Amino acid sequence: MHQNSPALLAALRPQFGDRLLTSQAAREHHGKGESHLAPALPDAVIMAKTTQEVSDVLQACTKHGVPVIPFGAGSSLEGQIHAPHGGISLDLSAMNRILAVRDADMDCTVECGVTRQDLNEHLRATGLFFPIDLGAHATLGGMAATRASGTTTVRYGSMRDLVLGLTVVLPDGDIIKTGGRARKSSAGYDLTHLLVGSEGTLGIMTELTVRLVGIPEATQTAMCSFASIQEATETVVMALQCGLSLNRIELADTLPMQAINRYSKTDLPECPTLWVEMAGATATVENDMDTFAGLAETALKIDRAQSNEDASRIWKIRHDALFASRALRPGIKGISTDVCVPISQLPSCIARIQEVIATTSIQAPLIGHVGDGNFHLVLLYDPSDQDELREAQHINSSLVTMAIEMGGTCTGEHGVGLGKKAYLPAEHGPALNVMRRIKRALDPDNIMNPGKIFDL
Amino acid sequence: MHQNSPALLAALRPQFGDRLLTSQAAREHHGKGESHLAPALPDAVIMAKTTQEVSDVLQACTKHGVPVIPFGAGSSLEGQIHAPHGGISLDLSAMNRILAVRDADMDCTVECGVTRQDLNEHLRATGLFFPIDLGAHATLGGMAATRASGTTTVRYGSMRDLVLGLTVVLPDGDIIKTGGRARKSSAGYDLTHLLVGSEGTLGIMTELTVRLVGIPEATQTAMCSFASIQEATETVVMALQCGLSLNRIELADTLPMQAINRYSKTDLPECPTLWVEMAGATATVENDMDTFAGLAETALKIDRAQSNEDASRIWKIRHDALFASRALRPGIKGISTDVCVPISQLPSCIARIQEVIATTSIQAPLIGHVGDGNFHLVLLYDPSDQDELREAQHINSSLVTMAIEMGGTCTGEHGVGLGKKAYLPAEHGPALNVMRRIKRALDPDNIMNPGKIFDL
Repeated sequence: MHQNSPALLAALRPQFGDRLLTSQAAREHHGKGESHLAPALPDAVIMAKTTQEVSDVLQACTKHGVPVIPFGAGSSLEGQIHAPHGGISLDLSAMNRILAVRDADMDCTVECGVTRQDLNEHLRATGLFFPIDLGAHATLGGMAATRASGTTTVRYGSMRDLVLGLTVVLPDGDIIKTGGRARKSSAGYDLTHLLVGSEGTLGIMTELTVRLVGIPEATQTAMCSFASIQEATETVVMALQCGLSLNRIELADTLPMQAINRYSKTDLPECPTLWVEMAGATATVENDMDTFAGLAETALKIDRAQSNEDASRIWKIRHDALFASRALRPGIKGISTDVCVPISQLPSCIARIQEVIATTSIQAPLIGHVGDGNFHLVLLYDPSDQDELREAQHINSSLVTMAIEMGGTCTGEHGVGLGKKAYLPAEHGPALNVMRRIKRALDPDNIMNPGKIFDL
Repeated sequence: MHQNSPALLAALRPQFGDRLLTSQAAREHHGKGESHLAPALPDAVIMAKTTQEVSDVLQACTKHGVPVIPFGAGSSLEGQIHAPHGGISLDLSAMNRILAVRDADMDCTVECGVTRQDLNEHLRATGLFFPIDLGAHATLGGMAATRASGTTTVRYGSMRDLVLGLTVVLPDGDIIKTGGRARKSSAGYDLTHLLVGSEGTLGIMTELTVRLVGIPEATQTAMCSFASIQEATETVVMALQCGLSLNRIELADTLPMQAINRYSKTDLPECPTLWVEMAGATATVENDMDTFAGLAETALKIDRAQSNEDASRIWKIRHDALFASRALRPGIKGISTDVCVPISQLPSCIARIQEVIATTSIQAPLIGHVGDGNFHLVLLYDPSDQDELREAQHINSSLVTMAIEMGGTCTGEHGVGLGKKAYLPAEHGPALNVMRRIKRALDPDNIMNPGKIFDL
């Protein structure tokens, strides 16, 4: 427990009553998330309902010098919600009001605890949707904090591209608004983008204004099998250069396809596979899928969906890939790597890491957002086995080193948290010190999610 | 002259020789730009050729406490290159090498002094291009510094969306790299976006890695006349919601159309006019222009280009709009407003400012990037006439106040410089102090383009 937590909790208890939790269960729920890292529990959990309450908590934390860690859905993968120095987990999941939807402007303003699923349910009648499609049931605040993305980023961009403005509470309790609702602005420093991806280390985003997009008139789906990753990615490069109306373009290598056949009792080709979705006007998607099929001349097989049900069948295969891969080693959850490289480097990056994997005993199925150059290896190892742990760490660090050498990044969409801190000096060099200077300027007492992204 | 400039110049002259200029002509060329503001000359001009030379100059400026102002093409509109506190204008136009073009990754790395025209000329054989299309013959460094955009932003975004990574020299001479070549990353603070739009107040960008896009297979152009701005913008909103393959969608109100008829001896309808360009696959643009024509049911006339030459004719009318508007009052250059509002607010914003204009003697033709909600009024006033000056200032400040109330911004693409500083407190509120804290953290001696964007 942080030495000043008892005084802080005594000060906050009158205001928050039974929304200030210190039970072991609450602390455990808030100190682990979906991370592979050992839990690190906060001293207490506070359930905030308003921006003003967040401000009150931050003022108190500053006064007492106690760390505060924002918490949304608890779906972060790299220890972003861990409390290695104790302190308060500030649970924002009850801040889940959709404040405004503006059809004509194709934007909306929501509280940080709204999930993307809730938002899209709310938008159903508007013909609009919020396009970030990731695996987790995450909150928009958490997605912004980690600069999340997913399968549709090739078309719509990541949280970086979709957040227009924020309400942010600073460590001293000041409430600021960044950005706005204009589609572009040249009015001063881009604080919105500075906050997006800052993982709660500079301030807490309590409201977000995000772009929405129109639901496309039509989609067309196909699944294509290739003899090699190289041929699959070459096809993707050509499709990107042609400006086809790609909505999703996903990749799996041979091992997940074997896993899927075993898991789902299917008979799919066990070779590198692309899932492709075009979206747009009916004429466009027909035309673009024809073009794609022409570009994919090296494909062994193209399975083009003939109906919406057929498209669902094809996407279910993709969605099953993670579960099927984990089922290769029952009882082992595995951890996911997250490098992202320039797409031209993808074949050699994958080939080189597969050579490394072959020198170990680890199974590592590969699934990726290939249009972005981002892929995940699910490292199926037993963390209690020191040899396997060492091998998994070797694969992970080899991969990150390789990706950075290729002009890429250690994390395309999961964020840094505690899990990827070690790689940031190699990726950013002296720019990391600029990040530290900004952190010190905005959070001089280092109470905002301390120890995440980098050490001071 | 800054009191420490003589000592600084003595220290730098041996290194830079005849690339250190103190002539009146050089100082005047570097102290005005395209701005309507009175010139403010630097004490000297240094022509840099390398990132290391920029670092040397910045170290010397820090040592002597002398301001340094980056200079590209001198096309800034709001006094960004002015030297109100004297010091050095660091001319980067000779840093104009294209360092790498990577077709497969659809990106390139250039020195900051490369112009967009030079870059696109260089890219001609690749099938790719750099899509920001603005009026000026600007450098990419300058465009990034002001977060520039233009006619194609509705499709490709602004400099904010297209810069992937930077090489930046900090005031102490440190050279950092921000971002990278991956299409997305969640690895720490987004320094790239912090620098883009910082107008040389935090550091100097010497190299940029930017996204390129494929040249579309086909384009389709049309010009549509409407009885009212309202009907024109409603059509635009519908087109945006349908996700049509809009490449450009530009607006002029009645006055520029009258000006064009007078200037070009044409007989165009003198009413609010949209220029529309679709781009994509041939089938897509045909289909989408048909859809657009259906949506534009309130249009009085749709002039759809029948050939490439015909499309050029239509776009020439749009390009002539600024010159024709200026010709309404020969000898008067006019100044350009630059608000950007949520598109739903555009009709009322325009209607309300036209009421204000009607109370003055000023002619103010309107031309806009309507897909972004960004429009320019060309205020045709004589700055030496105090009454006209007062009226023009009244229009400008009324417009900015209105835009900010509507959730918009005082500047969509021109930047703040000296000219729009007064509006930033209203637009950003307490967030402006966060910008100041970042400025102090990164430029503690306030040598980087001091006095721009905000005062400390």
